[in-house]
Amino acid sequence: MEDRKITDNIEEFPIQRVASAAKQVTDDMVAREIPLTIIFNNQELVTLLCSPTDKKYLAIGFLFSEGLIKSKEEIRKITVDDRGCVVRVESEGDTEHDGKLFFSRLITSGGGRGIALYGEDDVRRQVKIESQLVLSTTRIFALVKEFQRCSRLHKTTGGTHSAALCDTRSILVFSEDIGRHNAVDKIFGECLLRDIPTGDRIVVTAGRVPSEILLKVARRKIPILISKAAPTNVGVRLANDLGITLIGFVRGERMNIYSGAWRIVTDGA
Amino acid sequence: MEDRKITDNIEEFPIQRVASAAKQVTDDMVAREIPLTIIFNNQELVTLLCSPTDKKYLAIGFLFSEGLIKSKEEIRKITVDDRGCVVRVESEGDTEHDGKLFFSRLITSGGGRGIALYGEDDVRRQVKIESQLVLSTTRIFALVKEFQRCSRLHKTTGGTHSAALCDTRSILVFSEDIGRHNAVDKIFGECLLRDIPTGDRIVVTAGRVPSEILLKVARRKIPILISKAAPTNVGVRLANDLGITLIGFVRGERMNIYSGAWRIVTDGA
Repeated sequence: MEDRKITDNIEEFPIQRVASAAKQVTDDMVAREIPLTIIFNNQELVTLLCSPTDKKYLAIGFLFSEGLIKSKEEIRKITVDDRGCVVRVESEGDTEHDGKLFFSRLITSGGGRGIALYGEDDVRRQVKIESQLVLSTTRIFALVKEFQRCSRLHKTTGGTHSAALCDTRSILVFSEDIGRHNAVDKIFGECLLRDIPTGDRIVVTAGRVPSEILLKVARRKIPILISKAAPTNVGVRLANDLGITLIGFVRGERMNIYSGAWRIVTDGA
Repeated sequence: MEDRKITDNIEEFPIQRVASAAKQVTDDMVAREIPLTIIFNNQELVTLLCSPTDKKYLAIGFLFSEGLIKSKEEIRKITVDDRGCVVRVESEGDTEHDGKLFFSRLITSGGGRGIALYGEDDVRRQVKIESQLVLSTTRIFALVKEFQRCSRLHKTTGGTHSAALCDTRSILVFSEDIGRHNAVDKIFGECLLRDIPTGDRIVVTAGRVPSEILLKVARRKIPILISKAAPTNVGVRLANDLGITLIGFVRGERMNIYSGAWRIVTDGA
């Protein structure tokens, strides 16, 4: 199963590798990219460029991130077409969503999402996260190590981002995708469909943390967000405002704590 | 001027840095993020999350990438509002663009663009690039070294992507942005407004190369695209189809040539 996930997501190409000023013909594994169209209540909503696995999770995670579905109970039917490039989702309630939603929209730094929450009103409506979860720096380094071990598609191609939902002991849900927004949507889509709670849990991401990733995580009431990369200034400000512990640049035995440092204890301190 | 570009794009935050199991309070520079709304012929088109500098270049590069303007001559007026979060562009010809353009749209792996060219028809319409430009591996390593030297915002924050237009000798146009699509749009916007030709030239990017980046570059008739990172399978296939030399993973004295290897000569070979 896991092996199929890897092979479905890669393609082999003949390349020329240059090393020490010599060209050598060899084969190289490259991450696959597909256009996935989401049809929501019989209306074509969007086409995402993504890795080919876990399409249902991606579709549901995307719809949730955009505020178009709010719970598993609202989902009536999910079907993936034969050729695997269309996911149809039907929900209870309003069958027509507002077409304008995608017209005057926000294109984000990293994945073209963020219409749902970015406005100041939306941020104000977002409830501050009160979780008393505490995590040690030793656990953070261990989680990131496990995270890297799981990132097999990244190891094979160098062309994907990983995301994971964890408790303080280990990884519960893991995904890899050519888009870092997709990777996060996939883990939350899986949580929604498999009834995995997200409160008092931790998200680890390989990607950077601009506002829209922070807000995606805030929506799921995640108190601690750990990134291997950099946040933006708005990412840091929102993390402070929303009570989220934001950690960046976890590398080797180092990390930066940008907000909510009270949740992080150094071992022996 | 260059220094202002750096300071406009960063914000300092108090952080806690963990190293060798000890917490230390310090200050850290984080890349700034702003929402930039593009109003095209009096209609609100899109809001991009981006770095705050070179807004005009970004707006024009975006409109060009989306196929909404085709030449500098079509641009009647560009204004940036006082608070710097809105760019208004007026063009000759049709004053109303098609609202549906952004409704049934493509959200890409890395930056939410790509509506203009991704369809198979668009790819077929794209003319194969016939440029006879040839480049040595030594020149590639030198260009990438210069590229890294110029990437000051990335060095300061670790949170931005760079892009550059080069000839075989050096960098002609350079930009940095929190989004890799924005960085590429900024260089092409600058080329358009400053009448800098792009044919027979080279693009260097810090970011990965999925289909939409490849197509953006193909539109400007660039024969050689050099990335420090990985392509996707569709990126490689399109590069082959469109006659573009695609190079990835340029690191130290190594690189992978994915397509059009005839344009690359190894020195002494």
